[in-house]
Amino acid sequence: MEDTGKLKIIPLGGLEQIGMNITVFEYGQTIIVVDCGLSFPEDDMLGIDLVIPDITYLENNIDRVKGFIITHGHEDHIGALPYILKDINVPVYGTRLTIALIENKLREHGLMEDTERNVVHFSDVIDFGDIQVEFIRTNHSIADAAALAIHTEAGTIVHTGDFKVDFTPVYGDPIDLLRFAELGKKGVLALMCDSTNAERPGYTNSERTVGKTFDTIFSENQKSRIIIATFASNVDRVQQIINSAYEYGRKVVVEGRSMVNVIHTAAELGIIKIPENTLIDIDELSNYPGEKTVIVTTGSQGETMAALNRIAKNIHKRITLMPGDVVIFSSNPIPGNEKAVSKVINELSVKGADVIFQDAHVSGHACEEEIKLIYALTKPKYAIPVHGEYRHLKAQAKIAEAMGMVKENIIILSSGQVLELSKDGSKIAGEVQTGAVFVDGLGVGDVGNVVLRDRQRLAEDGIIMVVVAIEKETKQVLAGPDIVTRGFVYIKESDELLEEAKEIMEEELMRCLDEGIGDWGKLKNFLRDTLSAFIWRRMKRSPMILAVIQEVD
Amino acid sequence: MEDTGKLKIIPLGGLEQIGMNITVFEYGQTIIVVDCGLSFPEDDMLGIDLVIPDITYLENNIDRVKGFIITHGHEDHIGALPYILKDINVPVYGTRLTIALIENKLREHGLMEDTERNVVHFSDVIDFGDIQVEFIRTNHSIADAAALAIHTEAGTIVHTGDFKVDFTPVYGDPIDLLRFAELGKKGVLALMCDSTNAERPGYTNSERTVGKTFDTIFSENQKSRIIIATFASNVDRVQQIINSAYEYGRKVVVEGRSMVNVIHTAAELGIIKIPENTLIDIDELSNYPGEKTVIVTTGSQGETMAALNRIAKNIHKRITLMPGDVVIFSSNPIPGNEKAVSKVINELSVKGADVIFQDAHVSGHACEEEIKLIYALTKPKYAIPVHGEYRHLKAQAKIAEAMGMVKENIIILSSGQVLELSKDGSKIAGEVQTGAVFVDGLGVGDVGNVVLRDRQRLAEDGIIMVVVAIEKETKQVLAGPDIVTRGFVYIKESDELLEEAKEIMEEELMRCLDEGIGDWGKLKNFLRDTLSAFIWRRMKRSPMILAVIQEVD
Repeated sequence: MEDTGKLKIIPLGGLEQIGMNITVFEYGQTIIVVDCGLSFPEDDMLGIDLVIPDITYLENNIDRVKGFIITHGHEDHIGALPYILKDINVPVYGTRLTIALIENKLREHGLMEDTERNVVHFSDVIDFGDIQVEFIRTNHSIADAAALAIHTEAGTIVHTGDFKVDFTPVYGDPIDLLRFAELGKKGVLALMCDSTNAERPGYTNSERTVGKTFDTIFSENQKSRIIIATFASNVDRVQQIINSAYEYGRKVVVEGRSMVNVIHTAAELGIIKIPENTLIDIDELSNYPGEKTVIVTTGSQGETMAALNRIAKNIHKRITLMPGDVVIFSSNPIPGNEKAVSKVINELSVKGADVIFQDAHVSGHACEEEIKLIYALTKPKYAIPVHGEYRHLKAQAKIAEAMGMVKENIIILSSGQVLELSKDGSKIAGEVQTGAVFVDGLGVGDVGNVVLRDRQRLAEDGIIMVVVAIEKETKQVLAGPDIVTRGFVYIKESDELLEEAKEIMEEELMRCLDEGIGDWGKLKNFLRDTLSAFIWRRMKRSPMILAVIQEVD
Repeated sequence: MEDTGKLKIIPLGGLEQIGMNITVFEYGQTIIVVDCGLSFPEDDMLGIDLVIPDITYLENNIDRVKGFIITHGHEDHIGALPYILKDINVPVYGTRLTIALIENKLREHGLMEDTERNVVHFSDVIDFGDIQVEFIRTNHSIADAAALAIHTEAGTIVHTGDFKVDFTPVYGDPIDLLRFAELGKKGVLALMCDSTNAERPGYTNSERTVGKTFDTIFSENQKSRIIIATFASNVDRVQQIINSAYEYGRKVVVEGRSMVNVIHTAAELGIIKIPENTLIDIDELSNYPGEKTVIVTTGSQGETMAALNRIAKNIHKRITLMPGDVVIFSSNPIPGNEKAVSKVINELSVKGADVIFQDAHVSGHACEEEIKLIYALTKPKYAIPVHGEYRHLKAQAKIAEAMGMVKENIIILSSGQVLELSKDGSKIAGEVQTGAVFVDGLGVGDVGNVVLRDRQRLAEDGIIMVVVAIEKETKQVLAGPDIVTRGFVYIKESDELLEEAKEIMEEELMRCLDEGIGDWGKLKNFLRDTLSAFIWRRMKRSPMILAVIQEVD
């Protein structure tokens, strides 16, 4: 075997969590980037709207970066694009729906003019110079999802994207297993396979099974209005709701901005087929008896601002929940959202709705046996589990082992690690800068860990400010110390405590000034430490304490 | 039927959530209170340690309150006692373990001297005057759990407490179904039954099934150290771990303060049987090979400060995780804890532990068929589902309906509602004050909704303070405006923005003073509004803004 050089794989995100998927592939003079997703903030990222990857590595190698290859249109794969394209303006490649959903985002960010988009068809191969990328059809919870075969002289990497094996998909064809097999026959250097459901035994059910559930529910609830909450981007799910509605003579309203956008886009592309006179405008709802309508809505994860939550809280402008309404959660709570979902279920139940939250959902990710199938077909030399928390990657590693792979060839990477594959084998050849960049309002990256730590402290126990005006020359106190608090105690009922705190600050101030302390930094420290000790002694709390000294000339 | 007066049932908590169980029963001149639990803070209760019920109603009727009757020793049934006994000092009644666990709390709060405790045996009937309370044996995830038959001339109420039907419990006898049947035969006015698992079909498995799982895991992992995380109060679970350990020749270490306390108490009462030389001190661990030890620990819910998390993070002082250690989660995540649990699993996996988190737990609460059994035996006139969120209460109401009860006799109460049962039937006869009292550090009730709203805002976007010193007479600015921020932006990188904010404040200050505004309240409002508008325009953020004006004589 001749020396074909080194193929580098560098995940910049996606391996510590489900979210923020972005992986760099490097061969010769060519760099391509697979996916460019965001993640949603963890509980301790207070006030953060969303999180995007640190792409310093791409900035440092910008001349070689040839394009973003996007596997499908979910936020954890496309969500960071509008932020990152501002710095890394290279062409974007994806299938029809994927590019259409990206374009929705580009329009919002005013980036349509400046961004080159390329719609790719399945089986197309894009030549980036030293790397060729082939799109392979898969199934997932969004249409037009693709796996990739990344061809280099060093070998072919198969990246599954997010996938499941659905032999009877609602839209389009089943996953192109033949191509996976063909690639396996020719030789696959490494398989990078979706790990999300690797802990779950068996197979993921076909999306079509949910359609049957809808039929059953529709047939059993012919006298009730039906409200169905699901993921905005699950076009096939909405298709099946529309099918059941059509069969049972109901009109369908789609509600929730993100869902309206996706369905509109999917309808334009012909990915969803809506029989005439089935979809009606929300304002037409009142023209039909409730039992002749279905409302499809966002909010299946209990999101505060989503349509379903507003319906449940009775603050939706145009939909009022009625006792006897049947509400279906066509979703499972994403870990972390269980309580929010439960809250919405309770609110709906209190108002007399009949809530159905079982059996009306299937996952979009492959379970153990499907993952095995892909290993069996591709017979990779190396296994690099992707898309998941460590526990998921580990579960896939165990599957790969069960499939007979040698342990040394199963590589669990961390984001930032540089994996080199060559004729000499595999090695971790260093580490590049990665991380989470916080987006808060219009600010990208201006909130860091120091700010978050402050927010955490403020959230726990609030803040106390001590403000003093001191004359510069004489070091005489001209005003204060005044004590102001927020988020600490209910001020009206804590008069005494605050009065006492003020007295203690006066004493400490006098002591310091008497001792001739003229360094305001030092003085502030004394004030803060004394007040902090007093508050802890009295209340066992640690509010942030801020001393402000105003120097008067 | 003669007029036997009205029996009042007033839940002061426990019907909007799982937690804070406390219910008032009132007949004639007698008031008794069943349970006195706390709840843990919701995500939006920032900085709150725990939540206890508002007992204004009891304070207003203190002369008639005869005692607290506690069904079992879980925090959501006993946790508020040490706080509330300070105001309502009446005798406490419970079974052995329940009273022993309460006493642990009373000691911590220095309340042993002042509190009358009464250990009750199953089948005992306590006479409170117009009400008699009978204790009935049940099964639950803590030993010595009791149901209550509350006897009055108006009829008998059966309150199940938290229960399951376990025909083969690890400690003690199965639930006393005969007594439920006997009461049913005599006539039960109302059944107040545990709703926690009412949504789950079928039966809850016997605690013993977990013992079998342990045996299997122990037999399959004879070469590894085993660490098992479970609930501190589940004595039977620990018993079964000890049994398996004994069988496989392993020594057992119990780690985690709360678990050590409970096991110590249970051992003193003979509720747990520990074979000689099985339990060892944590300091003796190093004397044995890992595969000859088992560590039982707290932290199965991913609690930050618990032993398991410290082990996972490698900050435990005396236990170092080793690759190959088998870690068993003998628990299910309580809704809301899923992410925290997952985080611990990931940390353990990264360090090479083999994590088992399936099939090593059963619930302590009755599922649908067990609930039906209790209805079938007691044949109540009224059904009052308790212990759960609305969705759970509703699920039980459906079960009661399925058991043939008429809809009007199934009563879902809200906390605070006064239910009157009499010969004339049932009616909601008003409402009493209820609510959540927040405990934060040493403060009980000094943090209310205003403070929480401030904390929420501080957590979201931080705080900006504008401080100015103004001469009283001349209205001349002596110092400032100074701008100080915390939790808002990374100050070093936001120089420009803060400088601009300062300029805007200077201008606004001059404008106001030029216009002769001498009311500092008004001036503060102007400063705040102007700064707030500026920040929103520039950053789409809403930090809390605080203007402080120091008046210098």
